[in-house]
This record gives sequence, C-alpha cells and structure tokens, in this order.
Amino acid sequence: MKSLQEYAALVEERLPGYILAKCDASSTLARAMLYSLMAGGKRLRPAMLLAAVDMLGGNSGEAMVYACAVEMIHTYSLIHDDLPGMDNDVLRRGIPTNHVKFGEGQAILAGDGLLSLAAELMLEDALTHPGSMDRRVAAAWEIIRGAGAFGMVAGQSLDLACEREHVGGSKELDLIFLGKTCRMFIHPLRAAARLAVAEEWAVDALDRYGLAFGRMFQAADDMLDIEGNASILGKSVGKDEKGGKLTAIGVYGLEGARALVDEEMAKALEALEPFGPEADFFRELVRSMRGRDR
Amino acid sequence: MKSLQEYAALVEERLPGYILAKCDASSTLARAMLYSLMAGGKRLRPAMLLAAVDMLGGNSGEAMVYACAVEMIHTYSLIHDDLPGMDNDVLRRGIPTNHVKFGEGQAILAGDGLLSLAAELMLEDALTHPGSMDRRVAAAWEIIRGAGAFGMVAGQSLDLACEREHVGGSKELDLIFLGKTCRMFIHPLRAAARLAVAEEWAVDALDRYGLAFGRMFQAADDMLDIEGNASILGKSVGKDEKGGKLTAIGVYGLEGARALVDEEMAKALEALEPFGPEADFFRELVRSMRGRDR
Repeated sequence: MKSLQEYAALVEERLPGYILAKCDASSTLARAMLYSLMAGGKRLRPAMLLAAVDMLGGNSGEAMVYACAVEMIHTYSLIHDDLPGMDNDVLRRGIPTNHVKFGEGQAILAGDGLLSLAAELMLEDALTHPGSMDRRVAAAWEIIRGAGAFGMVAGQSLDLACEREHVGGSKELDLIFLGKTCRMFIHPLRAAARLAVAEEWAVDALDRYGLAFGRMFQAADDMLDIEGNASILGKSVGKDEKGGKLTAIGVYGLEGARALVDEEMAKALEALEPFGPEADFFRELVRSMRGRDR
Repeated sequence: MKSLQEYAALVEERLPGYILAKCDASSTLARAMLYSLMAGGKRLRPAMLLAAVDMLGGNSGEAMVYACAVEMIHTYSLIHDDLPGMDNDVLRRGIPTNHVKFGEGQAILAGDGLLSLAAELMLEDALTHPGSMDRRVAAAWEIIRGAGAFGMVAGQSLDLACEREHVGGSKELDLIFLGKTCRMFIHPLRAAARLAVAEEWAVDALDRYGLAFGRMFQAADDMLDIEGNASILGKSVGKDEKGGKLTAIGVYGLEGARALVDEEMAKALEALEPFGPEADFFRELVRSMRGRDR
C-alpha cells in the first residue's frame, strides 16, 4: 500500500501519455485537455481506486487506466462546472479556468473530449484483455454510471436547479450530496472491487465508506467555502456567496454542518472495520479530511 | 432490410425508455435530455447502423442499444454545438434550442448526461451478454472512439479554431470534414460490422463508404446553408454567414463544392459494389442526399 502522494505521482506520470496517444499534440483540443488535466489537484479519486485495489489484493498496475479515467472525468466535470453558464469561475487552483484560457467553445469540447477519452480508454483496455474482459467491463460500467445521468450529472443538475429556483431543503441536499459528490467516490471504489474480484461484503463496506466519505467531504467543503467567506464578511454563518447554492450550512447551520461531518466521519471509520489494518490508507484520508474545517 | 423511416421509427420508440430507466422523470435533467432527443431528426446514423447489421447478416434487434447510443451522442453534440460559446443558435428543428429552453447550465449537463448514458448503456449491454461480450465491447469502443477526442470532438475543435482565427484551407477542411462529420458515419458502421462479425473486406468497404458519404453529406450541407443564405442575400457564392466557418464553398467555390459532392457520390457507390443488391438501402441514401443540393 502506498501513500496518497505516491499514488498521485503514479497517476500524474501516466495522464499526459493517454492524451498524446489519441490527439495531435499541437491541436487546441489536446492543449486544452492537458491544461486542466495537468493543473495540479490531489488526484484523490484515482488514488482511492488504486489503494482499494491494493487493499483487496488485486493488481493496482492493471487498474491504472481506470484510475486515470476517473481523473479525466473529474477534470471534465470541473471544466464544465467553471463555465459561465454554470458557476462562472475565472480561477481554479490559482490559474485561469479553461474557458478563460481557451474560450468557452474549446472548454466545452475539452470537457467532452476528456469524458469520451475516459470511456474509450477503459473499453480499449477491456478489448485488449480478453481473458479478464468481464471484470474490466464491470469496472468501466461502474465508473461511467457513477459519473453520468444516474450519478454525478444528475446531482449537478439538481444542484443547479435548486440554486436557480431558490428551492430545496434537507431532502434535496441529501440527493445533491449523493449525486454530485458521493457517486464519484462510491463507483470508483466499486470499480476497484470489480477489478480485484472482491467479495460482496467488501463491495458493501466500500459502498458505505464511499457514501459517508463523500458526505463528509462535501459538508467540510461547504464549511471551508463559508468560513473562507466569513473572514472577509465578518460573519460566521451565512448563505454561500456563489449565487445561493444549497449547502450543509444553509440547511443545518454551522454547528449542524459540523455535527454532520463528525457523524459521517464515524460512519466512514466504522465501514472500514472489516478490512482491519489493511484499510489504514482510508482511515488516514478520513482523518486528514476532518482537519480541513479546523 | 427496412426503409430509413422504418428503422427511424424503431429507434424513436426505444429512446425515451432508456432515459426513464436511469433518471427521475420529473427532474430537469431528464426533461432536458428528452426534449432534444425526441425533437425529431431523421435518425440517420442509428438507421445506418441497423441497416448495416441487417445487410451483413447480423441481428439488428440486438444492435438496437448501440443504434440508440449513436443517436444520444449525435443529440449531445447538437446541444453543445448550439450553446452561446459555440454556434449560438436559438432554434433547431423549428423549436427553441436546449439552452434557450432550460438555460445554459442545464443544456451543458443534458449533453454530458446523454454522452455518459450512451457509454453506460453499451457497457451494460456487454456486461449482461457474457457469451458475446467481445464483439459488443468492440462495437462500443468504435462508437465512443468515433465520437471523441480522436473523432468528432477533434473535428469540432479544429472547426472552431479555424473559424475564430480565420485560418485554414483545403487541408484543414479535409480534417474538419473527417472529424466532425465522417467519423460519426464511419465508426457506427464499423460497430455494425463488429456486431455482425463481418469479414475484414466488409469493414474496409464500409470505411470507404462512410468516408465518402460523410464528405458528400457535409459538402451538400455547406451548399444548403449557402444557397439558403443566397436566396436572402441575393448572391450565389459567399462565406458562411455564421461567423466565417470554413466550408466547402469557401474553399472550392460553389462549382467546386458541387464537383466534390459528385466525386464523393461516385466513391460511395463504388464502395458498395462488393455487397451487391443487399446494399440498396445505402445506395438509396446516397441518391436522396444528392438531391439535397438540387
């Protein structure tokens, strides 16, 4: 088992080659895809996929393409999220967002290209490994399903609808957290379980971990946003300043959001119990994430 | 072998069920996806895929999910193309474009959702047919590859770059035609060949047909745009009015574009020869398309 930083470095090393193998390196499309894909980021989701494969006794080397596909999908979602028609952000990770750098049209296409490439690479991997095609196809299906109209995209759409129509309470917040955040933890972990041919109890435990971790992650993120604003605005509880998004703090207040983080942290750690000390990578992640809002 | 209209009707009948099986029907996402998916259209690409499977002696019933995936991908590309950051069109097929109806953010997500769903459905089909998983995965790979950063998205990006930078000649036009138009004929036909377990000579012939048909289709489309404009503008040759896109007429002039259509028509018909009378569906398509600019 490696550290988050070690897994992240392995992913980072492999990402550009996948783009350059499919695209003309000098094209605007390749440059726009690489710009956001290689702009830093913790590589949290692909690292979790690789760590889960290792924890379950699989071969994380053969899981690399699935990990990179997850990072491409995460990056595409950030590029599209930042567009003027969505969150209209001009900076991400300290540099201009994709559409500021390449224009809106190219940013839309860079996102489309990354999502397509993620699917293409996973299908290609399955196709070239006939002896283990079934578990590879199962892994690809989990990842695409988690990212798509059943998963992340559904959550983003509901998030946007609630924001624009100024509606929603705890029920909508639960669905938004599940869709836009938890699905892209749950399904890459399920993909890892398929690749490692894990037993059903392990899939169930990872499901519970992914759900709790995602909820904790998103609630802590909401608190960071607000507390970030708070220092500027001189108030400790408030609506998210980005156009009134539905947040854990908006629904539960600051103390309620803090309690939600604690509760989900406990659930995440509990879900890891059956794995014993092999799950220390995932325990450490929970603890480091808990530190984000302190 | 059925007619274009008969295949189109079969596809049309199946499309909504795929959306409703994955999404909450009352959600904005489901409504936005269905709005554009069910807004008419000739269903040309899925019909060609199904007809090719029939021509090659395969089972077009089992190819239906691949045909529907192709239509979802075509629809996603139109939704994203129409966005203000791309072509900025407010009407398509006589009704408001997706972003006019649902807002830009939801239109971006509807496109993302349709692309994801296309991949998800094909993977699911492969996964649930272990005995023929290899040819199903091969078909899915062809379709996603044709649509993505190697295919359609690459063509759209080059198209947009040439338009915005006012550059490009016949070399760029060839690449744009190949990417944005031909790939989504060639690769669905290759998918059909994989599903029907066709021999390599048939794949090669369909490749040649798809390329020639796509070039003919796009050149005829460019002529329609211009001649459509011409009747308003009172001139017979000119730049495309939509912001100076690189077109067959811009590069070759009206007579040159007409000659290109004739040349590609001949190539398309020639590519069909080895199939004999079984290929009449595809011959008829060429002839009907040739009528578009007359």
